[in-house]
Amino acid sequence: MQTHLRGRDMITTQEWTRSELDSVFEVAKELKRARALGKPHAHLRDKSLAMLFFFSSTRTRASFEAGMTQLGGHAAFIDSETTQISHGDTAKEMGEILGRYYDGIAIRQCDWGDGNKYIREVAEASRVPVLNMQCDVYHPFQILADMLTIMEKVGDPRGKTINVSYAYASSYQKPLSVPQSLILLMARYGMNVRLTAPPEFQLMGDIVEQARENARRSGGSFEQLGDFDAGFKGADVVYPKSWGCWLTTEDKEESAKIGGKYKDWITDSRRMALAKEDCGYMHCLPADRNIEVTDEVIDGPNSWVYDEAENRLHVQKAVMALTM
Amino acid sequence: MQTHLRGRDMITTQEWTRSELDSVFEVAKELKRARALGKPHAHLRDKSLAMLFFFSSTRTRASFEAGMTQLGGHAAFIDSETTQISHGDTAKEMGEILGRYYDGIAIRQCDWGDGNKYIREVAEASRVPVLNMQCDVYHPFQILADMLTIMEKVGDPRGKTINVSYAYASSYQKPLSVPQSLILLMARYGMNVRLTAPPEFQLMGDIVEQARENARRSGGSFEQLGDFDAGFKGADVVYPKSWGCWLTTEDKEESAKIGGKYKDWITDSRRMALAKEDCGYMHCLPADRNIEVTDEVIDGPNSWVYDEAENRLHVQKAVMALTM
Amino acid sequence: MQTHLRGRDMITTQEWTRSELDSVFEVAKELKRARALGKPHAHLRDKSLAMLFFFSSTRTRASFEAGMTQLGGHAAFIDSETTQISHGDTAKEMGEILGRYYDGIAIRQCDWGDGNKYIREVAEASRVPVLNMQCDVYHPFQILADMLTIMEKVGDPRGKTINVSYAYASSYQKPLSVPQSLILLMARYGMNVRLTAPPEFQLMGDIVEQARENARRSGGSFEQLGDFDAGFKGADVVYPKSWGCWLTTEDKEESAKIGGKYKDWITDSRRMALAKEDCGYMHCLPADRNIEVTDEVIDGPNSWVYDEAENRLHVQKAVMALTM
Repeated sequence: MQTHLRGRDMITTQEWTRSELDSVFEVAKELKRARALGKPHAHLRDKSLAMLFFFSSTRTRASFEAGMTQLGGHAAFIDSETTQISHGDTAKEMGEILGRYYDGIAIRQCDWGDGNKYIREVAEASRVPVLNMQCDVYHPFQILADMLTIMEKVGDPRGKTINVSYAYASSYQKPLSVPQSLILLMARYGMNVRLTAPPEFQLMGDIVEQARENARRSGGSFEQLGDFDAGFKGADVVYPKSWGCWLTTEDKEESAKIGGKYKDWITDSRRMALAKEDCGYMHCLPADRNIEVTDEVIDGPNSWVYDEAENRLHVQKAVMALTM
Repeated sequence: MQTHLRGRDMITTQEWTRSELDSVFEVAKELKRARALGKPHAHLRDKSLAMLFFFSSTRTRASFEAGMTQLGGHAAFIDSETTQISHGDTAKEMGEILGRYYDGIAIRQCDWGDGNKYIREVAEASRVPVLNMQCDVYHPFQILADMLTIMEKVGDPRGKTINVSYAYASSYQKPLSVPQSLILLMARYGMNVRLTAPPEFQLMGDIVEQARENARRSGGSFEQLGDFDAGFKGADVVYPKSWGCWLTTEDKEESAKIGGKYKDWITDSRRMALAKEDCGYMHCLPADRNIEVTDEVIDGPNSWVYDEAENRLHVQKAVMALTM
Repeated sequence: MQTHLRGRDMITTQEWTRSELDSVFEVAKELKRARALGKPHAHLRDKSLAMLFFFSSTRTRASFEAGMTQLGGHAAFIDSETTQISHGDTAKEMGEILGRYYDGIAIRQCDWGDGNKYIREVAEASRVPVLNMQCDVYHPFQILADMLTIMEKVGDPRGKTINVSYAYASSYQKPLSVPQSLILLMARYGMNVRLTAPPEFQLMGDIVEQARENARRSGGSFEQLGDFDAGFKGADVVYPKSWGCWLTTEDKEESAKIGGKYKDWITDSRRMALAKEDCGYMHCLPADRNIEVTDEVIDGPNSWVYDEAENRLHVQKAVMALTM
């Protein structure tokens, strides 16, 4: 158990050691039991977290806000539109000033090329921990929740195969943060990681390299596939979700048009049957129902999506309780 | 005193027994005294309520939020526009997921034909109580506050006459939820209920039937009138407010045009003089001043509107403390 | 130490005695130390503050909300757009009703000619303290924070020279509330107050007269200058910021056009060199960087802007703890 985490930022899991991340999971499990038992765990009494959102949110906002209340504190939902950022407040000023009022600053800024940069600038100026609620590059808390879910479902993740796959969606061009954070962390915990995507939907090169290196060190493996069906074959866990082809084009309409070539990349029962019998279906939600995945699969017995969403609460409470 | 209410939804008062509702009023009175005395009553320490709004709110949001704070917990104000519902989060998903983060889910969804349906779907999927903050059919907390106010003002409601009446307003086409919940509950507590409305402004047929049946069982009475002035005659309480003619047309402009035929349905001193001398004037607010009711009446000595608004706080705290 | 402040409004510092304001500073310093030491100070456990905003905010909302949490209570962020004010809720109704739910009501309403009037009407109807989070005339909490900062930086403010000056900005036409509240309070604490502005950018006449009278009583001084450079000469503190020429024209485009004549009213190193060597640069933020002030000055060693922003938290907690 690592006891030195007070004051630490969580921008990407890559900046935390395995031992530090293990401490997060250990505390998350304890806090999950405490909530199930109704056992008080107000480790952050009267402390507060600023949650600054530049993009819409259901699970993230709700789980951070409820989590802070359960820990005895408060999370303030701050829609960037209601602030004076448009009147000139800079990232540095936000870090300096919010850091003096609050005990932590959580930020969602997903704009391609800007999000991570903004969060880093706030963190540089802030005296309190900065938590990345999703940027253009990473989504660490989603993936910590995913890892906890996998541990709960399959036990030791080493040697298990996870297929991180592109899927088609029509709603909007989503960030790369979920698949990127997934391949990084899953490779680190010794899983056999498959990244399955069409040629136009590659992830950032340095992230892919880091994932490969993580796998090498952990004794896991990393491979890239280009065929949707192939990704499912023999997998223990599948995580097929949509993202934009940001490295091919930053034009959202162009990205949507390119995506349109892959409308058959939908997760259905036939594909699930290619995987292991008890293979888990994961998705960070919301999904484009019957476009990205059929109702039959997402609402079926192999779907872990609700347990996965619930674990957002527990891992986030663990990180907040340890760092704030 | 009923002690088995933990986990119960409050979608309509019709689904709660008289004895259960009596427990709500008993607790509401106790909590009202506690607040007046500054006596701590943190029955929901570190618990939290999601308040999901699809429509604007002043009193409802404020009273639920302040109420949760007074009970030691927190209510999260969630404007549906800031969520990912538009990106695909379904009612079932909201119920499943918010139910895992929060200890209760309160919803306002007033769209004609959709609101109640949505709340029922969330409740079906949720493991925690779902509270109806107003839908297209019911507004239970408003009417519980109204009943408490009547009990405080006139004592035993049995045999007292309440006139639930249409009034003209120009601001927007309001839901049927207030008059419908009113006739249901007031008839249940043995009042003589008058429903006064123009022919185009009828309430839903099955609600009217249930109100009639409630009156029969309680020893009260139920009658329908078509003349505005007649509704006031000899009444102990009047509750004239506007609503849209949703059963005549779902077109809002058409509804406004039909309403325009009844511009003389305004509550003024002459009309109040037709009622009993100490007749109470009630309104859930906001009112269209000098269109729906004159300033003289709404600001006058017979107006109970502020005490009525205050009682929102106390009945809601009672239901939350009993169910969450 | 004044002990009778429970229930008092804070709309302008002018309505509080020197001795009452001294109590605020005394408590603010104590609460600042308590936070630095991690010493619990939950003086408002389970109490709540409504924060009603008609205008955007970063520091004000964050510092009030975090402050209430630190005091053990809760501040509700209420964007006026989400309420039913547009459906008819009057100022009187807001005061009556929010005053029954919450333990305090804080309001930001900066519309020229309307803001202060609105806050006064709410306060008239409210049974709980009303706190002015900025109106068209006053910004008392900003200036209390400014005074605390000056005391921390220069010690006894008597005889020190502060230059409250217009500066050019292009972002939007700002209220007069900051310079007006500044000249009132600084003159009251015995400072030599300079008000420097172009002819079109005068402040309200009665405010200027009160500032002059405050200076006379306190043994300070008050003078008006028309030359930007002259304002800096020998000053101990400079507070150059932009405002609209509301008394010349209420037309925002016209105001912007008139402001355009003064683009050289920018605070730079040359101007700072005219002041005393350790002269403090103050600004309530956000500033129009490199238009209103150069980065070199606002980010330089003489800039007090972050300490000034932080003190918002401490003075506001003091007023809330004393009044609510």
